Amino acid sequence: MGYRVAVAGASGYAGGEVLRLIASHPELQLAAATAHSHAGAAITSVHPHLATYAGHYFASTTPENLSDADVVVLTLPHGESTHLVGKLSPEIKVIDLGSDHRIDPDWTYGLPELPGHRADISTATRVAATGCYAVSVIVALRPLLDAGLVEPDDVVVVAASGTSGAGRTPAARLLASEVSGAVSPYKVGCHQHVPEIKAATGARSVSMTPLLAPMPRGILATVTAKPTRDDISAADVQSVLAQAYDDQTFVRLLPEGLWPHTGATLGSNAVQLQATLDADSGRVIVCSAIDNLGKGAASQIIQCANLMLGLDEATGLAVNGVAP
Amino acid sequence: MGYRVAVAGASGYAGGEVLRLIASHPELQLAAATAHSHAGAAITSVHPHLATYAGHYFASTTPENLSDADVVVLTLPHGESTHLVGKLSPEIKVIDLGSDHRIDPDWTYGLPELPGHRADISTATRVAATGCYAVSVIVALRPLLDAGLVEPDDVVVVAASGTSGAGRTPAARLLASEVSGAVSPYKVGCHQHVPEIKAATGARSVSMTPLLAPMPRGILATVTAKPTRDDISAADVQSVLAQAYDDQTFVRLLPEGLWPHTGATLGSNAVQLQATLDADSGRVIVCSAIDNLGKGAASQIIQCANLMLGLDEATGLAVNGVAP
Amino acid sequence: MGYRVAVAGASGYAGGEVLRLIASHPELQLAAATAHSHAGAAITSVHPHLATYAGHYFASTTPENLSDADVVVLTLPHGESTHLVGKLSPEIKVIDLGSDHRIDPDWTYGLPELPGHRADISTATRVAATGCYAVSVIVALRPLLDAGLVEPDDVVVVAASGTSGAGRTPAARLLASEVSGAVSPYKVGCHQHVPEIKAATGARSVSMTPLLAPMPRGILATVTAKPTRDDISAADVQSVLAQAYDDQTFVRLLPEGLWPHTGATLGSNAVQLQATLDADSGRVIVCSAIDNLGKGAASQIIQCANLMLGLDEATGLAVNGVAP
Amino acid sequence: MGYRVAVAGASGYAGGEVLRLIASHPELQLAAATAHSHAGAAITSVHPHLATYAGHYFASTTPENLSDADVVVLTLPHGESTHLVGKLSPEIKVIDLGSDHRIDPDWTYGLPELPGHRADISTATRVAATGCYAVSVIVALRPLLDAGLVEPDDVVVVAASGTSGAGRTPAARLLASEVSGAVSPYKVGCHQHVPEIKAATGARSVSMTPLLAPMPRGILATVTAKPTRDDISAADVQSVLAQAYDDQTFVRLLPEGLWPHTGATLGSNAVQLQATLDADSGRVIVCSAIDNLGKGAASQIIQCANLMLGLDEATGLAVNGVAP
Repeated sequence: MGYRVAVAGASGYAGGEVLRLIASHPELQLAAATAHSHAGAAITSVHPHLATYAGHYFASTTPENLSDADVVVLTLPHGESTHLVGKLSPEIKVIDLGSDHRIDPDWTYGLPELPGHRADISTATRVAATGCYAVSVIVALRPLLDAGLVEPDDVVVVAASGTSGAGRTPAARLLASEVSGAVSPYKVGCHQHVPEIKAATGARSVSMTPLLAPMPRGILATVTAKPTRDDISAADVQSVLAQAYDDQTFVRLLPEGLWPHTGATLGSNAVQLQATLDADSGRVIVCSAIDNLGKGAASQIIQCANLMLGLDEATGLAVNGVAP
Repeated sequence: MGYRVAVAGASGYAGGEVLRLIASHPELQLAAATAHSHAGAAITSVHPHLATYAGHYFASTTPENLSDADVVVLTLPHGESTHLVGKLSPEIKVIDLGSDHRIDPDWTYGLPELPGHRADISTATRVAATGCYAVSVIVALRPLLDAGLVEPDDVVVVAASGTSGAGRTPAARLLASEVSGAVSPYKVGCHQHVPEIKAATGARSVSMTPLLAPMPRGILATVTAKPTRDDISAADVQSVLAQAYDDQTFVRLLPEGLWPHTGATLGSNAVQLQATLDADSGRVIVCSAIDNLGKGAASQIIQCANLMLGLDEATGLAVNGVAP
Repeated sequence: MGYRVAVAGASGYAGGEVLRLIASHPELQLAAATAHSHAGAAITSVHPHLATYAGHYFASTTPENLSDADVVVLTLPHGESTHLVGKLSPEIKVIDLGSDHRIDPDWTYGLPELPGHRADISTATRVAATGCYAVSVIVALRPLLDAGLVEPDDVVVVAASGTSGAGRTPAARLLASEVSGAVSPYKVGCHQHVPEIKAATGARSVSMTPLLAPMPRGILATVTAKPTRDDISAADVQSVLAQAYDDQTFVRLLPEGLWPHTGATLGSNAVQLQATLDADSGRVIVCSAIDNLGKGAASQIIQCANLMLGLDEATGLAVNGVAP
Repeated sequence: MGYRVAVAGASGYAGGEVLRLIASHPELQLAAATAHSHAGAAITSVHPHLATYAGHYFASTTPENLSDADVVVLTLPHGESTHLVGKLSPEIKVIDLGSDHRIDPDWTYGLPELPGHRADISTATRVAATGCYAVSVIVALRPLLDAGLVEPDDVVVVAASGTSGAGRTPAARLLASEVSGAVSPYKVGCHQHVPEIKAATGARSVSMTPLLAPMPRGILATVTAKPTRDDISAADVQSVLAQAYDDQTFVRLLPEGLWPHTGATLGSNAVQLQATLDADSGRVIVCSAIDNLGKGAASQIIQCANLMLGLDEATGLAVNGVAP
């Protein structure tokens, strides 16, 4: 029977991935899948890969259509969730993937691996899920700042993302003809995830360059920062990361010599990490890989929902990616 | 605690996918993962996406290492399984992905969706899994031949496959630089799956052209055949396919107007089908999509193992693909 | 200073490729590049790869803006060229990539490699360029029909195309997220190029299945037909193709054992061919590879323009592809 | 008849691209193409895209086979050129793509766009071509250091490369199955191009992270550095880059708002640049795009050969890329 989950914005890529995870989750069932322009359409006409939803249709995104649920998941365009949330009963648990509430003291930030957050999420009724780039950077950076290994004021991030992060609204720059076989940067030096990265890590300055890479899913973030002391070694950095995530199901420091690979995280809630010191500059370099629709969106949401509902956080989620 | 499965050839792509499915299967556990050149290596050094196997190592592929199991899965190079099977106890259930036993009366052909095969597999101890291309063609063609809708003697197949079907042994023609952004045919008119397609469908003549496509997984097969009568319509063809697979969990005739898409089957055991009549030639055209490592290999194997062990055949398998 | 070429519809992919070829052509110069919604925009804002056009702008697509030219090239949406051509002086040479005039006795079909067509094109003022799929099929099929080697009434074609063939108008099905890592068919059994293939080859029945492949450019066509006699060998087929194209600069029968590869034709006017007999069905299989924007569109157009202007047909065109 | 060029290591990707450029170059002809394991093979059996070389074969890589040439181009594995060069007459002009001589005072560094280098190359007989990553970084960084706009001691580079940069020797990590749909870093913090970047720019410390991206060609480099003064603006940075390259045929600062795209440089000798200041950190960010086999290897070599032979440096080279 399970808990009932309603998904608003379910016709998008993140929403579709939430539907996929609900379908194979032993304790969750779909209460409603709502959409805007696709309201009334068959779910499988928009998501032909979700065959188990044959015979189900998108409802309109209204408070009424979402209210018969234990958890409401919002995967709406940024800016559209606040109004909707205001019309939901305070007793309904809400997880919002939009950026509206990520730096809002009334909401809990949805990254269970941050110190203290797992407990907070477990008792929260309003959770703001972490942005996809933000996940990839925060997980790599926070333990090093907490341990005092790197300086907080000169963090440089270059992160390559697959195209699904840009959504499914047609645009010329997202056409396969444009993206195939090419890499290009966008929103250079002005990405909207920087404030939440700083808030969640304590970094004081982050230079962020996102790259669009020719792949449907995945983020590979390269995070570099200056060590606080000359005697810090690669082993020190690896040791701090290993300790930080040793008891975390979904975050894994790779063995020496192996580096993160976005393909290894496809379809999963996994984060892969590796770190070193740069031989020439002495900078600490941490690389992380996630599935932007997995730990960067939908499976992060389900992980939070599991916690909010008192379930094991890993229920219905994959640690292993689908590769090759 | 579940049934114990040993996997020989577990360092390959198909073997890795079997390991992935075992990891999330509620009734199976890994008894042994064996390899040849990778014997002794950590499983995660070869399959970094399989994080749950951290701390596990490949054993050598010997009868002894495989014998403490309820089911032995063989994903070995073609020709290498016969000798090994001869040294396993007849009581151990064996599923062989190699082609050695596919047209062998002592073995059961591992395609549960073929008429009568589900029952045969359920009682078998020796199952020869279906070749990846063969799955994509047989599922599309068999019902039409059974219903007398198409002629058995002029079947033309062109099937595009992702690169994982060619395995992970390095070869120049499989390099990303060669494959990216390009399609090319290979083994034209002489593919080794033709005999099993004919044996499993009753087709008398099959022209088969495989294409290597720039994607890691997936097969899109286009199967055309002449209708047996002038009055056969597209609706007749669709109706026969719908009836054939109406009660099959993993095979789905798409709604009118939607055509199969390999991406929609990624990581799953699904088969997507659609059919029409060609306006100019009057030929029947059926297209099918599968994941070559899914229904074309590893999840097909698990489906057979489920049946052989008396479990629900869908246990631990996905109907929904990982998309986009 | 060279001949003046005006390009209508120059903001599209085919139009952009025509501009690229004009830029490096020793005898042509751009008279005008016109567009519809991009009229007034910088050429490099739409085609950032065409750096030599920095400082040039798209004009509106009007007869006046196209008339100061020796040759007008039309790369407009199908159906939009007839009206425009009617307003151009009969003395201006026109090459139309649209399908409007391909089966029109007042226009010359723009495939110089067809018997007799080179001479016709050289004296024509109205040339209808060949469709991209049609090029790939006609070049493979016509010599075999002319030589009486194959039957004209049961030709089966499956052809995989890159995404640029679908143009640059944004559409969900053409998004990189949808196309990457996947193959799917479209317009099955009803493609608009079938009539021109039949007209240009003498085939009486063609079953045509187009596939969308995850690559920006290229068509790989598999053309199968029944031999007319039992004693026809693969060598016979290869011999006929070799003779047909022995003196053609841009069409090449590959050496025994090598099969066409779309990547090998990228950016060029080349056609690669290979053929065999299917071992099981006895069918003749011919595979061809082209760049859909090359021999399938823009470089075919320049080849025709060269002939119409009395130049060597290969001027400014590449035989060698850009690979890998 | 033109100058005679011999290419050693012509069976590799860079060597093949040199052959392609020679084939369409109006003043160069091939004197010899030599190889190691492919000696004796047909050039088109290794490079099927180079149809104009049908009937030509690879010779062995020996001094004798290379000596009947005006220019010898070496595209050999790193470390193999020194011995060979020692056996060539001092009068033969040599361009070496290997890294052996890049920081060697007896050799001229082959980047004509560096101040003073064009003249040096024009009179040199020994030119060490620039490494592919190095080109992408040096062109972006050098003018800013020369102008005193950025600090030389904290340069951070993350650069994504296509797979052809890794050569055509088969390796598991370069298989299409591994690379498709995924990004991963390699040689983190220890790339061999760092010393030549420092030597050619005056940077004192460079942190370099290379990424392997799922595309056959292209490098997208993100170069960040600290401004030397608080009052430096994005416009200042752009202005310095514009002035540095205003009269350079192959390097282009893009218009405001457009960012480099590797696809736009495919097959060409072009470098695309754009720059900004990071809003949060104040760092200068410069992104550059090249074709790693173009300006990063083969067309850079031809540009140098043109200069050494007294030709216009742009002869036979493309400014416009092949896109989409």
